[in-house]
Parts: sequence; structure tokens; C-alpha cells
Amino acid sequence: MKKGIAILGSTGSIGRQTLEVVDRSEGRLTVQALAAGSNWKELLGQIEIYRPRLVAMMDTEAAERLDEALRERELPIPVVTGEKGLAEAACLPEVDTVVTAVSGAIGLGPTMAAIEAGKEIALANKETLVAAGPLVMAAARRREVAILPVDSEHSAIFQCLQGQDRRLARLLLTASGGPFRDKSLEELRRVTPEDALRHPNWRMGPKITIDSASLMNKGLEVIEARWLFDIDFDDIEVLVHPQSIVHSMVELADGSILGQMGLPDMRLPIQYALSYPERWQSGWPRLDLTQMAALTFRRPDLERFPSLELALTAGRTGGTLPAVMNAANEVAVHAFLDRRIGFMDIPRIVREAMEAHEWRQEPDLPGIRRADEWARRFAAERIGKGREVSA
Amino acid sequence: MKKGIAILGSTGSIGRQTLEVVDRSEGRLTVQALAAGSNWKELLGQIEIYRPRLVAMMDTEAAERLDEALRERELPIPVVTGEKGLAEAACLPEVDTVVTAVSGAIGLGPTMAAIEAGKEIALANKETLVAAGPLVMAAARRREVAILPVDSEHSAIFQCLQGQDRRLARLLLTASGGPFRDKSLEELRRVTPEDALRHPNWRMGPKITIDSASLMNKGLEVIEARWLFDIDFDDIEVLVHPQSIVHSMVELADGSILGQMGLPDMRLPIQYALSYPERWQSGWPRLDLTQMAALTFRRPDLERFPSLELALTAGRTGGTLPAVMNAANEVAVHAFLDRRIGFMDIPRIVREAMEAHEWRQEPDLPGIRRADEWARRFAAERIGKGREVSA
Repeated sequence: MKKGIAILGSTGSIGRQTLEVVDRSEGRLTVQALAAGSNWKELLGQIEIYRPRLVAMMDTEAAERLDEALRERELPIPVVTGEKGLAEAACLPEVDTVVTAVSGAIGLGPTMAAIEAGKEIALANKETLVAAGPLVMAAARRREVAILPVDSEHSAIFQCLQGQDRRLARLLLTASGGPFRDKSLEELRRVTPEDALRHPNWRMGPKITIDSASLMNKGLEVIEARWLFDIDFDDIEVLVHPQSIVHSMVELADGSILGQMGLPDMRLPIQYALSYPERWQSGWPRLDLTQMAALTFRRPDLERFPSLELALTAGRTGGTLPAVMNAANEVAVHAFLDRRIGFMDIPRIVREAMEAHEWRQEPDLPGIRRADEWARRFAAERIGKGREVSA
Repeated sequence: MKKGIAILGSTGSIGRQTLEVVDRSEGRLTVQALAAGSNWKELLGQIEIYRPRLVAMMDTEAAERLDEALRERELPIPVVTGEKGLAEAACLPEVDTVVTAVSGAIGLGPTMAAIEAGKEIALANKETLVAAGPLVMAAARRREVAILPVDSEHSAIFQCLQGQDRRLARLLLTASGGPFRDKSLEELRRVTPEDALRHPNWRMGPKITIDSASLMNKGLEVIEARWLFDIDFDDIEVLVHPQSIVHSMVELADGSILGQMGLPDMRLPIQYALSYPERWQSGWPRLDLTQMAALTFRRPDLERFPSLELALTAGRTGGTLPAVMNAANEVAVHAFLDRRIGFMDIPRIVREAMEAHEWRQEPDLPGIRRADEWARRFAAERIGKGREVSA
């Protein structure tokens, strides 16, 4: 098996680990296109190693710097820009699989373009399914394109469901509970971005790390799972599992539970998405269960972690609401990272956006984009106002 | 799907639970034949409910009593006897699947007969594969007969392997560690049959419960797994997991571990062996991981539990040795249950039999039977002698 891949978000955490998987693939994976946001220096380094056919950057200024540097090095590789550029990189004829590893709702357009071009998707951008699950899955079905999960939880479920009678299955999505799982509501109000970025088990980008600390990430994952596995929200349960060893589970009709375990290492689910249905040997450290702390499971506390409940409400309601919830959360998380709001202001702003939004039941892609943009403006405005009041 | 089944060992623990599965099967399973050892009264009760076409008893005297009772009740159901009778019950034309739930090496003959007759096997009698793994599996391959595991550990592995790329897989067989897992060698010398029969997690027959206490059961399971899944001994690892929630696991080429979990309830693996590849909804109590003790895993202590190592040695050596090991163990376990020897005499007698045996590399079925019989005589003799000395 040989696969050409495009990596959207190659300078991020998942992007870099995808390149490690390529390095170990013994030529079975080749990099055809790379795309990043604004980190042109790191992208330049990757281009020098992997020599893709095409590169894309969201940021036009960074793209100019990159283009210049490539010319100096006499590397005649075209640089395209913006969301359209990302879509172009994803749709190259030599690309079989697109790894969508950009952070946030900007993944939606290029992912849809790749599906329409018949590309297999290794999905690491959960916001795509959160904002537009019904549209994305309908397009994938129509084009007969596989969407393979990269998120460790969804990869775990996908692995467990292979060869199984899926009727009546329930999903048990595990959550580490993040760095704040034992903090009181009072303590949660005072945590800093530094506290939140100190995730106990996983090394990830800043946005997803904050979402892990608020359990919003788990809410987004429930919505992602609902679409990816075509399963009712009522049949998806979240369990806090602080050791992050069981990456998620499936309960089948007879009550049998299958779970997937491993060290917290994203290279494994990335590789499985790219090697599927094969499994390739890996030289990475392996889980030795005898060296691990005892494994525990408990239900999440929705009072201390309201973001989880907001996400579940948005998911169940559907229509434009998940896109609004997700967009408001993105803006609020960045404001928290910039110290403009407190940690518990994130769910407050998300809730306010969800309440103020004029809901539509079956939006098309432009409708979802409008809802997303409205929510970003709304959240930014609230953050501005809140600052004036509390400063 | 509709299946006719024969249950060999219907009055034992697995046999009775198989009938519970039949009760819940909504007519998808019908009992065509029942067979038991000597408990004719219980068998009579089962016949009155399930009305099989044929019944078999190992014990001829018990068979006569049963025959009489059936005539009194005007139930014209033929009763056949001995190992030949069990084989006849297994080979009825109306039987699709034979549940081999007899205890000990007497399961071998009827199982082989059933395979030759093209019957699917739901294997609960591990001694069959321990004594004659290569012969049984060769016959199953030749007749294209599926051997579906009923043991919870092997069912777990079988479930985990569905739809997976099996190359380079390793098996992680869990063991509760039995009631004595934390006892010292000194304490182990003084334990009674009552102590040993008090298994912390599973309700099972006396032979397998003693084997669980000595970890011999796990040794037999390793050999069973080696043949059932065609995997090297070096790729099978035993882990002590006192909570008996993870019933076993599979480590795949990329390091991903899949495990099957559930309450310790044999009805689930029995039903899966009979419903496979479907899964039927069950109304049995379900595992709620949030209500369970923390899950732990450790390596077994071969010094305190020498039976495990003896079984592994026998398995690796192959030929007639596993049959000898198994037969000597059966005799020794019954002597321990009869208070004729101590608990730590069981592995001593097994070891002596293994050392005294004249090994043969590629025995046929009669050769295996001879080795089995020799080991039984040898062990009985040692037990007699030991009594004289230590009494």
C-alpha cells in the first residue's frame, strides 16, 4: 500500500506527529501537500525535508516570506494562500488522504472541498463535524469517501467497532478530566492560562488544552461521535478516567464492552487512520499495564464543568446551534489565553451566545458560516463589554 | 438465525447457564441433545423442560435410573451411555452446534467426533485443546468447522480480534489470581478445599475453581489460546487482574491494545459463541465501570504458583507432555478435594509425572490417550504412597 497525503495544519501538534508517522512508514506514505497558518519558518523546514508538490498558508504575509525563502533556496514549490489555498492543497490529484489537523472552524471549507474531490479524510479537526456534521457526513456518503477518526477517543471507538454487530451499540467516551478535575467551583474561577495549559497526560495545542480543562473538548467529541458513528446522543456516555489509558469504549447489544488502550500518544491513532485497515508495527513506547496506576472511572460533574452540558445541549438541538456554541467557545478560549476573561467566563459567554442566537433548523453551508460569524462577533462584543465592566 | 444445539455436560455450571441462554434466545436456539455424567435427577428435570431428541449419560447406572424415570413419565426419549453415547448425542443430524461443557479430558473423544461430523463447536472444555491441540485444530481446519471459545478469556480475545489485522498480535490473558493470590508459600501449604472453593469473582464447578486457585487454570488457558488463535507461546502473556472486569486483551502490531470487559458472568461468552457473528440483546446486569473498584494489573508470581509454570513448560514442549500434565493435575485436584493431599502437593505430583513420563513428539489420538492414562495411574500411585508416608 502506498498513499499520498496532504496535511492541513502541518506545523501544529497533530501535523508534526503526522510527519513522524510518515518518517516511520517505510515509504508507504508520501507528503504531497503541506498547509499551515502563519508559522512559515517551521513550514520551510518541513518543505526542505519532505519536498511537497504544493504548500498553502492561511496568512498571506507569512506566505510571501515563505515564497521568498523558497526562491532563495531554489526550491520551485508553489505557495497558495487562504482557505482557498488550503482547499487547493487538499485537492491535489496526487493526494489520496487529507489529514485535517487545523484548529477550529476554518477546517470546514477545505474538508468539504476534499470530500467533494473524493479524498479520504483523516479527521483531526473536530470542529468540522461539530459545526456541520449532517452536511459533511451526507457529502461523504454521496462521494463514498471514508472519514477516519484521528482523535484518540474516536479512533478507539472506530477500532472497537471493527467486525462487530453494531446494532444497539452505546459509546463510552473517556475524558481525563483535565488539570482541574478536582478543583472546586471557587478555585476554577481563579485559574490562569498557565494552570490550564498544564495538562496531566497529553501534549496538545493551546486551544484543545483549554477545551480539555473545561470539558468543552469532551462535549465537542460527543457531537463528533454522534455524526461519525451515526449514533443517538442518548447512546453516548462520558466517563472521567484520569489515567488516560482506556481511550474509549463501546458497549454492544449483549452488554459486552470493548475498549481500546494505549499510552497517551497521538502517533498511534494518526498511524491507524493512515494505515487502515492494516496495522503497521511501531517502535514507539508501549503500554505496560503492570506499570500503570489503577484505572478508575467516574461520571463528570456538570455543575463545575458547564461547558460539557452546553455542548450536549447544542448537539441535541442541532441546526445552527452547534456552530454558534463552537464559534463562541473559540473566541472565549482565545480571550482567556490572552487574560482578557476568567476561566469560568468561557461557558458564560458560550451560554449567552446560544441564548441570543436566532436558531435555524436545517442550515446549508453558507447558513452555518453566517451563524459562526454572528457568534464570533457576539462573543467578541461581550468580551469587550465584560472587560469594561470588570476592569 | 435458528440453531439446534447439543450440550455435553448440561448439569454442570456451564451447561445450566447455557440453558439460561437458550431460555432468552426467543426460539433462535433449540436443545436437540443433552448429556451429563451421573446427575440423572437434574438431567431429568432438564429433559422435562427442553424435550431433547436424545440424552446421554457417562455413568451407566445413572442412565438406567434415568431411563426408568423417563418411562414412568411416558417420555419416549432414548438414553445412550458412555463416551460413545456423548459422541452420539453430539453427532445428531439436527445438531448445528455442540457446547462441550464437560469437565476434564473426557471431552476429547466426543469433541473430535462432533468435528468429524461437521458440527460447529462452542468450546468450554479446555482440556480438549490442552491434550490434543494440534490434532483437534487440524481436524477442524480439514472439516472447515468453527471452534468458538466459551471460556471468558478466550471469548474476550476472540471478540477483540474480530475485524483486526492479526499480524504480530500478542495476547494478554487476565487472571483473577484466585482466592490465594496474596497468600504466602507457607500459608498456601495449609489451605483447605473449602478455602480454595471460595473464588472471589466467579461461580464455577469445583475442578476449575481449584485450578483457578493454583493458577493451573491460567496455564491451561495459555495452551488453549495457543491452539485456538494459532499464536506462539512467546506472544501470550498472563496478567493478574484481581477485579475480573477486563476478561482479556489483544496487543496489535502498532501497540494498540483492545480489551473486552463485562461483569463476571459466563452467560455473555456462552451467548456470543452461540449468536456469533450476531450479538443478541441481553437483559442481564450490565457493567457500570463507575461502580467498580479501580482496575489493577500485575505479573503472576511463578514461585508461589508453580502450576502455571508447569503448564507453560508442558505447552512449549508439546507432544504428549500437555496431556500428561493435564491428567496428573486432574487426579491431584480430585485428591486435594478429597483431603488426601495438600494444596502444594498438586504441582509436586504434576511435576513428578512430567519428569517420569516417556515423552513422544507427535502422538496420534490413541497415543495421547495412553499418555493420559499412564499419567493418571502414576499420579494415583504417588498420591497413595504420599499418604502412607505423610499419614
